[in-house]
Amino acid sequence: MNTGTNVLFDDWDDAPAPIAPDLSPETAHAPETAAGGRAPVKAADKRIVNGQGDINQLAPFKYPWAWDFFLTANRNHWAPTEINMAQDVQDYRHKLTPAERHMFENVLAYLTTSDILAMRNIGLAVMEKMTAPELQIYQARQVFEEALHTWTYQHCIETLNLEQEEIYNRYRIVPAIHGKIALANRRLEKVLCSGLDLTDRETLHEFALSYLFFAGIFEGCWFYNGFSPIFALQRRGLMKGTAEQFQYIMRDEVLHCAFGIRVIRELMHEENLTLDPEAVADLWREAEAAESVYAGYVLREPILGYSAALHMEQFRFVANRRARQLGLAEPFPGAEAALPWLDEQANLRKEKNFFETRITEYQTGGSLAWE
Amino acid sequence: MNTGTNVLFDDWDDAPAPIAPDLSPETAHAPETAAGGRAPVKAADKRIVNGQGDINQLAPFKYPWAWDFFLTANRNHWAPTEINMAQDVQDYRHKLTPAERHMFENVLAYLTTSDILAMRNIGLAVMEKMTAPELQIYQARQVFEEALHTWTYQHCIETLNLEQEEIYNRYRIVPAIHGKIALANRRLEKVLCSGLDLTDRETLHEFALSYLFFAGIFEGCWFYNGFSPIFALQRRGLMKGTAEQFQYIMRDEVLHCAFGIRVIRELMHEENLTLDPEAVADLWREAEAAESVYAGYVLREPILGYSAALHMEQFRFVANRRARQLGLAEPFPGAEAALPWLDEQANLRKEKNFFETRITEYQTGGSLAWE
Repeated sequence: MNTGTNVLFDDWDDAPAPIAPDLSPETAHAPETAAGGRAPVKAADKRIVNGQGDINQLAPFKYPWAWDFFLTANRNHWAPTEINMAQDVQDYRHKLTPAERHMFENVLAYLTTSDILAMRNIGLAVMEKMTAPELQIYQARQVFEEALHTWTYQHCIETLNLEQEEIYNRYRIVPAIHGKIALANRRLEKVLCSGLDLTDRETLHEFALSYLFFAGIFEGCWFYNGFSPIFALQRRGLMKGTAEQFQYIMRDEVLHCAFGIRVIRELMHEENLTLDPEAVADLWREAEAAESVYAGYVLREPILGYSAALHMEQFRFVANRRARQLGLAEPFPGAEAALPWLDEQANLRKEKNFFETRITEYQTGGSLAWE
Repeated sequence: MNTGTNVLFDDWDDAPAPIAPDLSPETAHAPETAAGGRAPVKAADKRIVNGQGDINQLAPFKYPWAWDFFLTANRNHWAPTEINMAQDVQDYRHKLTPAERHMFENVLAYLTTSDILAMRNIGLAVMEKMTAPELQIYQARQVFEEALHTWTYQHCIETLNLEQEEIYNRYRIVPAIHGKIALANRRLEKVLCSGLDLTDRETLHEFALSYLFFAGIFEGCWFYNGFSPIFALQRRGLMKGTAEQFQYIMRDEVLHCAFGIRVIRELMHEENLTLDPEAVADLWREAEAAESVYAGYVLREPILGYSAALHMEQFRFVANRRARQLGLAEPFPGAEAALPWLDEQANLRKEKNFFETRITEYQTGGSLAWE
């Protein structure tokens, strides 16, 4: 019996050989332009960008690792409302010093704006340029995760009864916060336009630089290191609910960064693209300068166990790691790990014993539910 | 003690009055252009499209219902790997008739392509044009859900050991499937361009029509009614795992449709826009014609308890409902519910007793986990 699952292309199913439809020119990625005419897509025809294959056909995968990223991200699913914030309300009101509260509010103010910006970058600037559906699929999850993070900040703001308009607006009136956002927006604006011709080498180079900035610096350094001041409170038993929320966000951001770096490497390989070392060096310099102003403001008074100097040394240490992952030269040779405990934060299983949160059960629950 | 949460805009926190940053022209939605200068965003300044407010500030909400959609969607979270497909493998191999298998494979082939297309429409064509962040936030979730649906189809294809390339490619060689996809792509292409000037009334009208097509027809009719042939098998105890997967997808699509219709209504109100009745009538006519060819092919031999005639009558009945929800005239007056059991499918609680699936516990589990 013919199940229609194991037949020749021109004699499939139990149907009369179908007439090839007359496709309108408006049809996106019209089959005519797809390698192989109306034959199924070949994995080899897929490309990171500038692909001519049919964007509507998921399989066969050319980038199975992208599909694995998608499955992993789904196993990591969580929601901010699951985390107990009760003690944080007391800590915030009665235990934080003015310096700690100043740090906490401004870190939160930076993060709220950053994640909306990250959502727009991936959803509007990057995803559309990917010509392999398995890449778009993970980025669709990534876009959602940025929204989930925004929900988390909103949840913290509401729980702690902060004045949300004032917090959301800080990035516009505090130069130290605005500096980082403006830098990211300049990068975003360069690649947002959907008419971008990535077959033009210069444009492609600009796109690769912007994607490198977002994956390697914005998510890989600024976000990765951006939660540290809050984790420093957590290590002293303060604001543990907020810190636990941020650990989930950090886990997502680690994946975003790893995915982006993988895409950039494949892109450079496929397009035989080399990044201008000077342009890359500028990226790091700009990022360090903006981060330094930010750290100086947020930590203008050091808090117990944390300081702007520690923050910046860790930034440079993480930046070197991202550069190595990208196959590039270390921007800050000799930078040393200033926060040996930070990487623990990205590993929620260790986390449990280390800070006595409930994440290990959560992970297990997660495994039961999502595997 | 000043917590920085209850102070005047120009004297917030314990900082010296900050210097307003010098914003680069590249800065997206630069504060200068935001109503109220550097003051916090006012809800009243937000708009569905053509808003000048700061896209990076979530609160205050002008569209709290959009935020509620986002929270509801997150409570509905699920994963295809949670649903037992073991019996489906046996049903597919040994119980389905050739006519049923022909229907099943072609419905699946249509859906796989449709959901990737829907993901691209929302993520790339619609979301960028929304100028209120609470709208983009729900659409970010929606983009992810379309990807989740694609994962679901892939999971079914793998579990049933169908030939995935052949299934994914059918829409290109089967005119009856291609007709619907080509129609959707023509709509998508009209609004995909990010340079679109929605202050131009004609362009705005075109955008509203396309969004109406995707929310009201593509998701509200084609998807809503598109699972019915599979549900007809489920009612006879066949392919219940696949059908349960599709019930979760249908629940998502019902939300997508409701959200889109709400947005279109608000858009028409805010922009004082009236849709050309003839253009709307054309939408319905085109959609019915394409659906009729599709139903005729997928159900060229009726299966027990289902037929192309039933499918089309139900399409017209649902189309009338969408038109009423949009505040428009019914396109198919007098159409009657041909599948009185269909709406049950969108309500998973009733579903449990009706088809003896495990969804009620799932819903409870979902509530425990996500509320």
